[in-house]
Amino acid sequence: MRNGTAWKRSKAWPLALFVAMSPAGAVAQEPVQPPQELQSAVAAESTVESFTLDNGLQVVVIPDRRAPVVTHMLWYKIGSADEAPGKSGIAHFFEHLMFKGTSNNPAGAFSAAVAAIGGSENAFTSYDYTAYFQQVSPDALETMMRFEADRMRNLVLTEAVIGPERDVVLEERRSRIETDPGALLNEEMSATLYQNHPYGIPVIGWMHEMETLNRADAIDFYNRYYAPNNAVLIVAGDVDTATVRALAEKTYGAVPRGPDLPPRVRPTEPEQNTSRTVSLSDPRVSLPSYQKSWVVPSYTTAEDGEAEALDLLGEILGGGARSRLYQALVVQQGVAASVGSYYQGTALDDSSFTVYGTPRGGASLEQVEAAVDAEIERLATAGVNEQELERAKNRFVRSMIFARDNQSGMARMYGAALATGGTIEDVERWPDRIRAVTAADVQEAAKRYLDNKRAVSSYLLPAGEEKS
Amino acid sequence: MRNGTAWKRSKAWPLALFVAMSPAGAVAQEPVQPPQELQSAVAAESTVESFTLDNGLQVVVIPDRRAPVVTHMLWYKIGSADEAPGKSGIAHFFEHLMFKGTSNNPAGAFSAAVAAIGGSENAFTSYDYTAYFQQVSPDALETMMRFEADRMRNLVLTEAVIGPERDVVLEERRSRIETDPGALLNEEMSATLYQNHPYGIPVIGWMHEMETLNRADAIDFYNRYYAPNNAVLIVAGDVDTATVRALAEKTYGAVPRGPDLPPRVRPTEPEQNTSRTVSLSDPRVSLPSYQKSWVVPSYTTAEDGEAEALDLLGEILGGGARSRLYQALVVQQGVAASVGSYYQGTALDDSSFTVYGTPRGGASLEQVEAAVDAEIERLATAGVNEQELERAKNRFVRSMIFARDNQSGMARMYGAALATGGTIEDVERWPDRIRAVTAADVQEAAKRYLDNKRAVSSYLLPAGEEKS
Repeated sequence: MRNGTAWKRSKAWPLALFVAMSPAGAVAQEPVQPPQELQSAVAAESTVESFTLDNGLQVVVIPDRRAPVVTHMLWYKIGSADEAPGKSGIAHFFEHLMFKGTSNNPAGAFSAAVAAIGGSENAFTSYDYTAYFQQVSPDALETMMRFEADRMRNLVLTEAVIGPERDVVLEERRSRIETDPGALLNEEMSATLYQNHPYGIPVIGWMHEMETLNRADAIDFYNRYYAPNNAVLIVAGDVDTATVRALAEKTYGAVPRGPDLPPRVRPTEPEQNTSRTVSLSDPRVSLPSYQKSWVVPSYTTAEDGEAEALDLLGEILGGGARSRLYQALVVQQGVAASVGSYYQGTALDDSSFTVYGTPRGGASLEQVEAAVDAEIERLATAGVNEQELERAKNRFVRSMIFARDNQSGMARMYGAALATGGTIEDVERWPDRIRAVTAADVQEAAKRYLDNKRAVSSYLLPAGEEKS
Repeated sequence: MRNGTAWKRSKAWPLALFVAMSPAGAVAQEPVQPPQELQSAVAAESTVESFTLDNGLQVVVIPDRRAPVVTHMLWYKIGSADEAPGKSGIAHFFEHLMFKGTSNNPAGAFSAAVAAIGGSENAFTSYDYTAYFQQVSPDALETMMRFEADRMRNLVLTEAVIGPERDVVLEERRSRIETDPGALLNEEMSATLYQNHPYGIPVIGWMHEMETLNRADAIDFYNRYYAPNNAVLIVAGDVDTATVRALAEKTYGAVPRGPDLPPRVRPTEPEQNTSRTVSLSDPRVSLPSYQKSWVVPSYTTAEDGEAEALDLLGEILGGGARSRLYQALVVQQGVAASVGSYYQGTALDDSSFTVYGTPRGGASLEQVEAAVDAEIERLATAGVNEQELERAKNRFVRSMIFARDNQSGMARMYGAALATGGTIEDVERWPDRIRAVTAADVQEAAKRYLDNKRAVSSYLLPAGEEKS
């Protein structure tokens, strides 16, 4: 993403993806949510359709006829976790290069065309995918497709392009990571949590490796991964499938198929046997905070129902102001200024579950951590009650309905699922699978995964405070 | 190594390598050290010679005429840190496969030939190299060369060979690692210490990856790395260079050159900004212990003199009973049962410096750690005195003289140096470079590298004891 923080790992789809994008600003142009009854009606109408072009490009059409707007998103099944060892940052660097000129269009022509019609555009890179999108009026869809199909193959990658843009991503890293103790800590927390899997490497890349990325790396990367058979096109909005198909064939259809890629098999985690901590104290930190994470299955790697149970666990334990953690630590005990939990479900490989907290008033970080641990222990021992489970399920199912009202949110939901090994049916049946989770499933997920003996805790501390 | 623990990382050459091998049992057949005066005389006599065969095999001859014994060691410049992602353990697995049959010699023939003449043999795999050696009478050298050259290219790698030997290495991992909490902890400590470099992956491999190693992996590995131009032959003992050259040309000379390999460039560490801990508590642990490590330059990556300063720092701080740590914690304060420090200098890439300790009597692990920290702080603040520096230098220089008396120790010293980017001259000038280190250099190394804000501490604890 050029303006925002979405190269950070996106959270779980469907719910959390929608939630996670809000602060990034990238979808700030979205309409305000209409009342809930209307949303339900909208949801019932949607019929998502999909087809594949001869060159392998999968196309998904999500009808949304309420306004003359269309969201055009192209997802490549390439993210930072697919990078070769020593080449961290190339996926995100390449996202930047995609905004440079092609043999048909000079640099800036695509963006100027979007701006000229009052549209918006952006892009983002994650561990498992890289995506480009524009939101425009439906009559501009063909132009968007033409530009997007053009830069899929015709980028001009000269030294004059590569060098200055590498400086841009290096500066991006400097301003976003190097100057932010919390960001530096998060990187080393991930590097500690993942002992073997490339999710331990930051999406933006390690500085010293980004510095060495060169033209040959970029060209190799482009030729290998930027091809119709490694992409998913999502078109959401005021269009019909026949139109999308005709336009896609006319534009993307002319792009030749790329190399057949091997399955996306990355090194996986060994069994973890230790508890670990990662601490950073820095004068720029005024309020201490902590985070504790565990490696857990993702929607792609989980056994049936386990990811859904982890999603509900995250919601019941620490999803918002009605959650157990918030009620106990913020409302009742008054020890925490913030506290919560979330599950990163949308991932090709095993992912993470996280709890976090910040003390309030005279409370110490240790008190907050101990109180969070106690709530986890209570949940793992005594389970969840039917009432809170139902409430959490209802919030999730409603979130899906809300999501349907958010055109680019919907596009993101399907795109992220399809780029991480999911199917359209997986997305559509997600509410049913959430409804099927039992209280015992949620308790079992907590017992099985939230084990302090295998947790990684990170502590962000003011200068002079050391974690003993 | 088939019987021993030498697939664990070897310690610094020259001194520490020699020290480190002693407990492994592999060189237990070495003669007892003669008095020191004699050793000096021996050292002065040695003239190491080197030449390269047309097929790229580097041959090093180390004369040692005191007894009718010859050490024949073949070093391949391939270790676990060169393995492809997801293929951990293949280097060590391949070491095992090298003891199987070739198209010329059935399995066991080589070992039987060594045993028949009263010789000994072994092999070991490390992060940066894999080596095979025999110690025999000089008249058997040609036979050793013939067998060793034969298995360099003619191994028979059928499924019938691969499957059962994979079971052997899996069982080796089970018996050495999975049943040993300290070994499991060490693995996760390394995985935490190295956030990007493959030294974070165990030499023996992760269990779940070892289980998938197959015939295709083995054949690829063999064809890529087992070739004369990726090997160094060390012959030490009662032989002359002309004889070794004639025999080597007759045997190894017939093996064709292998593919030209790219430089051994592995992903390197990012800047580290955090302090980290790794803890394991287990009912099998009776006495707690801890270890604290830092990533530091190796002899190959260090600026001039820095590795030598780190070696002396390890020696002055915690090298044996006269070291500061031992004197302070064991002798004076009586809080530690064991304590020490060492530098892993022999490595192709940045390596580690480690302190460790175990409490005694009523002392806690925290007390031991605090006392070690205090000694480090004292050394970094006030430096070392000339007397202790001289004593440490003398011990190192003497160790080199002792090493010269140990035929296979000498062979190992040169082999390890040459397999990790060093030269014969590097080994021979090491005593001079040690002598050149100043007290300021040692203090600077401590100040620069032994920073608690970037340390990784690991805690091995009895069941029920948790590190706060």
